Amino acid sequence: MADKIKVGVAGYGVIGQRLADGVALQGDMELVGVADVAPTLSVRALKEKGMPYKFFIAVPEMHAALDEAGIPISGTLEDLVKQVDIMLDATSAGVGLKNKVLYEKYGKKAVFQGGEKNSVADVFFHGYANYEKGLGADYLKLTSCNTTGLIRAVDCIDRVKGVEKVAITIIRRVADPGDYHRGLTNALQIDKAPSHQALDLMTIMPHVEATGILIHTPVTHGHIITVVMTTKEEVSVEEALAIFEQHPRIRVVSIDEGFLGNASLFRYARDLGNPRGDMYEIALWKDSVVKSGKDLMFAINIPQESVVIPENIDAIRAAMNMQSSRKAGTEKTNTYLGIGKWKTNA
Amino acid sequence: MADKIKVGVAGYGVIGQRLADGVALQGDMELVGVADVAPTLSVRALKEKGMPYKFFIAVPEMHAALDEAGIPISGTLEDLVKQVDIMLDATSAGVGLKNKVLYEKYGKKAVFQGGEKNSVADVFFHGYANYEKGLGADYLKLTSCNTTGLIRAVDCIDRVKGVEKVAITIIRRVADPGDYHRGLTNALQIDKAPSHQALDLMTIMPHVEATGILIHTPVTHGHIITVVMTTKEEVSVEEALAIFEQHPRIRVVSIDEGFLGNASLFRYARDLGNPRGDMYEIALWKDSVVKSGKDLMFAINIPQESVVIPENIDAIRAAMNMQSSRKAGTEKTNTYLGIGKWKTNA
Amino acid sequence: MADKIKVGVAGYGVIGQRLADGVALQGDMELVGVADVAPTLSVRALKEKGMPYKFFIAVPEMHAALDEAGIPISGTLEDLVKQVDIMLDATSAGVGLKNKVLYEKYGKKAVFQGGEKNSVADVFFHGYANYEKGLGADYLKLTSCNTTGLIRAVDCIDRVKGVEKVAITIIRRVADPGDYHRGLTNALQIDKAPSHQALDLMTIMPHVEATGILIHTPVTHGHIITVVMTTKEEVSVEEALAIFEQHPRIRVVSIDEGFLGNASLFRYARDLGNPRGDMYEIALWKDSVVKSGKDLMFAINIPQESVVIPENIDAIRAAMNMQSSRKAGTEKTNTYLGIGKWKTNA
Amino acid sequence: MADKIKVGVAGYGVIGQRLADGVALQGDMELVGVADVAPTLSVRALKEKGMPYKFFIAVPEMHAALDEAGIPISGTLEDLVKQVDIMLDATSAGVGLKNKVLYEKYGKKAVFQGGEKNSVADVFFHGYANYEKGLGADYLKLTSCNTTGLIRAVDCIDRVKGVEKVAITIIRRVADPGDYHRGLTNALQIDKAPSHQALDLMTIMPHVEATGILIHTPVTHGHIITVVMTTKEEVSVEEALAIFEQHPRIRVVSIDEGFLGNASLFRYARDLGNPRGDMYEIALWKDSVVKSGKDLMFAINIPQESVVIPENIDAIRAAMNMQSSRKAGTEKTNTYLGIGKWKTNA
Repeated sequence: MADKIKVGVAGYGVIGQRLADGVALQGDMELVGVADVAPTLSVRALKEKGMPYKFFIAVPEMHAALDEAGIPISGTLEDLVKQVDIMLDATSAGVGLKNKVLYEKYGKKAVFQGGEKNSVADVFFHGYANYEKGLGADYLKLTSCNTTGLIRAVDCIDRVKGVEKVAITIIRRVADPGDYHRGLTNALQIDKAPSHQALDLMTIMPHVEATGILIHTPVTHGHIITVVMTTKEEVSVEEALAIFEQHPRIRVVSIDEGFLGNASLFRYARDLGNPRGDMYEIALWKDSVVKSGKDLMFAINIPQESVVIPENIDAIRAAMNMQSSRKAGTEKTNTYLGIGKWKTNA
Repeated sequence: MADKIKVGVAGYGVIGQRLADGVALQGDMELVGVADVAPTLSVRALKEKGMPYKFFIAVPEMHAALDEAGIPISGTLEDLVKQVDIMLDATSAGVGLKNKVLYEKYGKKAVFQGGEKNSVADVFFHGYANYEKGLGADYLKLTSCNTTGLIRAVDCIDRVKGVEKVAITIIRRVADPGDYHRGLTNALQIDKAPSHQALDLMTIMPHVEATGILIHTPVTHGHIITVVMTTKEEVSVEEALAIFEQHPRIRVVSIDEGFLGNASLFRYARDLGNPRGDMYEIALWKDSVVKSGKDLMFAINIPQESVVIPENIDAIRAAMNMQSSRKAGTEKTNTYLGIGKWKTNA
Repeated sequence: MADKIKVGVAGYGVIGQRLADGVALQGDMELVGVADVAPTLSVRALKEKGMPYKFFIAVPEMHAALDEAGIPISGTLEDLVKQVDIMLDATSAGVGLKNKVLYEKYGKKAVFQGGEKNSVADVFFHGYANYEKGLGADYLKLTSCNTTGLIRAVDCIDRVKGVEKVAITIIRRVADPGDYHRGLTNALQIDKAPSHQALDLMTIMPHVEATGILIHTPVTHGHIITVVMTTKEEVSVEEALAIFEQHPRIRVVSIDEGFLGNASLFRYARDLGNPRGDMYEIALWKDSVVKSGKDLMFAINIPQESVVIPENIDAIRAAMNMQSSRKAGTEKTNTYLGIGKWKTNA
Repeated sequence: MADKIKVGVAGYGVIGQRLADGVALQGDMELVGVADVAPTLSVRALKEKGMPYKFFIAVPEMHAALDEAGIPISGTLEDLVKQVDIMLDATSAGVGLKNKVLYEKYGKKAVFQGGEKNSVADVFFHGYANYEKGLGADYLKLTSCNTTGLIRAVDCIDRVKGVEKVAITIIRRVADPGDYHRGLTNALQIDKAPSHQALDLMTIMPHVEATGILIHTPVTHGHIITVVMTTKEEVSVEEALAIFEQHPRIRVVSIDEGFLGNASLFRYARDLGNPRGDMYEIALWKDSVVKSGKDLMFAINIPQESVVIPENIDAIRAAMNMQSSRKAGTEKTNTYLGIGKWKTNA
């Protein structure tokens, strides 16, 4: 199809490879290729799979190392940029800003990830909370994994009941499976409050007051966030659950079903046969929803490796004016990613 | 001194041995002995130390095993009960109720731990929150470690500003150092809300509305609790810190000083030369205290192995009418345990 | 195809679901269905996937719970047994022995897993080490995950150089991802020596003297075993590597490529897009192979969830006389499972 | 006493503070003071304890930070060096080499730790294996924690039976309690073989051939090493145990007593009331000792924070010619540290 939107992915790491897979599933997009700097395990796996995606070299000096690993190279990052309509930049924090020079040189749009500074982009974006702000924008920055998942839960209540403020506790997984360059052993680590996720939420949803405390924990399968939420109109546990249930990117689960914690969701996604054992949805524990006076309290699970993929696809849709409304844009993304199908089967 | 209060300890495990040490430090109490069922590591260590405490056998059938381990036995648990004025029962959950028969038989008072059912006791006790209720009581039950530490922080604000409600997130250590019979590996586990600690707080402080979510984490050095607190009279960050600073059993610490998380406090207590690397105080992170609208949010650290020791000693003081006021009772405990000395040195 | 071998799987847990997937990939076998007792997460995932496999109920009393979870039931375990030629029994340890009564009742063959007692079976089986012993056998028991992987490495050297003895150190992962019923937190746990894996190896390879020490570690992604091996004919590092490289079920990897430990292999298998992030091959670290006098020392990685699947399929081939030689049987299994393709791409 | 040996400690971290405590216990040594660069938690704890040791500032630029923390400063590191006979240097790896300039300037002897390069010293030292080599030496380097403990076990067998070769598997704890700057989460990490500990052993015991594989594990309480040992004269399990039992710095323990793993030894040392829960002895599991053909296999536990303290004290004794023989030197150290008393009580 000639008029598919052409997309490139810079950085083929934890996020980048999932972005590439996500784009490849979109019927109205074409993944031109992915770029990275070295024969990492992910790049070696790409080769073992038979190069389903073209690989472009981001740093020419690494040519020899990639050759030695037998990775076929289809050109440079610059070559990739030339061939696309929009880049998804999932490089390490700070590299996106450098890459932006290249994107600007060829007049290409780009979507950056949460690790970049806000100033890299025109719009700080979330598919559900401010899709319209992204329409036609040149440079968008996505919220980080925790903020992306959190805003899903806050935004859907906000649209029905109005949210005044939230106080969050982020129980953060400290590394991804396979990480050796970071980790924590038998310790909980606390960050200075307020956490950046609370500040980021306020940037996206300026009418909400947010604060929070973040604790790092030595696990790899998903963050858990508890939320104490003050709404304009009081919301009961039942009403809240009904609203959460309707959100395509929220799974309402329970301990009684066997979802005992973050690792249960990883286990379940593996059992589902999802590639890499990924899950696009956040989970919300039915058994965690309680009232604190007029406030609502609940806990959600954030699958840190994959949660931002749908909102990144949404960002392409907004930036390229593929769909002009939040509803149409997110629904198209959901359809191609298979999000929400499980609700039908349920 | 003839009129020292005579105390026995049943259960020489994680809590029991710390209770024994704590009692031994009280100038107005005498530790008659400790009782346990088997040659556990703690009992073997008691022997290697040269039996500073007399050991009584709780289950006569285990005599051979104790003999084989060379543990000198000074009698049965019943013999111990006969010789004391009051028992501290730190046996496994449920055993305390059985032991109570023995305590009643000899008309001896007893203090039970948080694992027992509330019905075992006449008073559910906390040294700072309801000391007076314990005065002269026969059977007291202490709050569990999380609740004990949490109430210290809530009670001291409550006495100055009035506390209406709290919503807590407990990030719970799942095992103690040296535990092999329980544990969690690379997983966060969630309990059904509300957590029992919130319910227990309401039993001790019935004028406060409390709820909370508990998440188990695979670490051993201290729980962390975040608290979102609604006060009757609004409290600023500075006012709250000033109140916390004055509490002898709360250490106000900061990330900048090097207290990065729960393990830093364990490290610090070891460096202090505290026996077993224990700390009686909870820690409150200065850098965690923030406002959420009119509410206050903060994080505390609970050293699960040792935090309840002072309040247990308080319980003896109340039950035996040794001091008739909360102030006098807790101060005497603090003096003998060396709590608060650090404030003077600071 | 009328003459496909009909296979059923009892127990749809960690191993059972992988056995089902493995059988479903065999062009000359038909997976009739799977049986389990309750709406576990794996069974719920089966439903969400649209029931690719028929589900049979193993314990009729659980009908209501399964109905409530909306799981379509195709009959009882007995119904399943009637329809198959051979059962793969991956139930919890001890249940297989009970199920055997049913298999015997209908004259059906069965393959049991490592958790069962050896007496449940006629042959203690390993696809590479003693395939011929399994030919036509009625009841086979597979080696456990560690032993299965270990024997691959020992057997291939044994066939070329002769192995006299091995002394192994098993650094055992203590739980699988998603496990909450077992775990270990910040502790290494030692078992009494010799480890059962060493004893099991001697049962399969009686001409080898084996001993070993097992240490449990708080991780979930793969066991690591170090082997000190005395060969009849001395083997150099280069010769050993050449032999390992030729084994279809051994991947020779290196730290320089990025395989830093057990989690790297899990990461790589996820990146490969393998269902559940599984890997059938053990990995052998090139950088670990050293000489100790005339002995050889090396380290291997055992992907505990999936390593036994190929040897289970081999067991069906032997028991059903589908292929009469070790070479033909294991090659057929490898072809259908896609094992060894990566060597061609390398 | 005028003729006590005057000792200074540079670096008041994990090792340095334990060295200081160890020296302070020696009746024939005087701890002049300790030096460090910043108000770390350990230095803050020193202050809270009331400055039992004089503190010297190693980097004058940090004066303000130390003042702000209220740490009394008794002079500079240079001032400390001037006042001592010998320095124990426990600074971070590489700093010792820089400090050596200062030690040389004032003609003072020094003992460096395992992290420094061998070239920093004249003698690579172990109290039991080569005490005599250290006699009168100016600069000694201690073996690292694993090598120190390992050599105890190898040397004592070597002296009776002769050791030809060892193949070791080091299951290494990756961080100390309270570490946040390093860690590993849910992963086992492998180093390139042979491990440096095997090479170091050969430097100290050049007649032994040693190799080994090291695996990092996400725990904090003690390394475990398995050893496959070939002796000149065959040694039975019973003979080996008898030899190990006689070594004052080896505790022979068993699983049946309750020593289930590395954390049990930490637990036991805490229960003993040892400062910081430290243990100077390595543990050797009776239940782990097995034969592999004529070879011996066993497992030992290395308490990484404290194991090198006695051998450091030995090094002072050798360097200062305080005792002229291995036997007299190590016995004096043991007496002052209370090592071996437990054997008498046993």
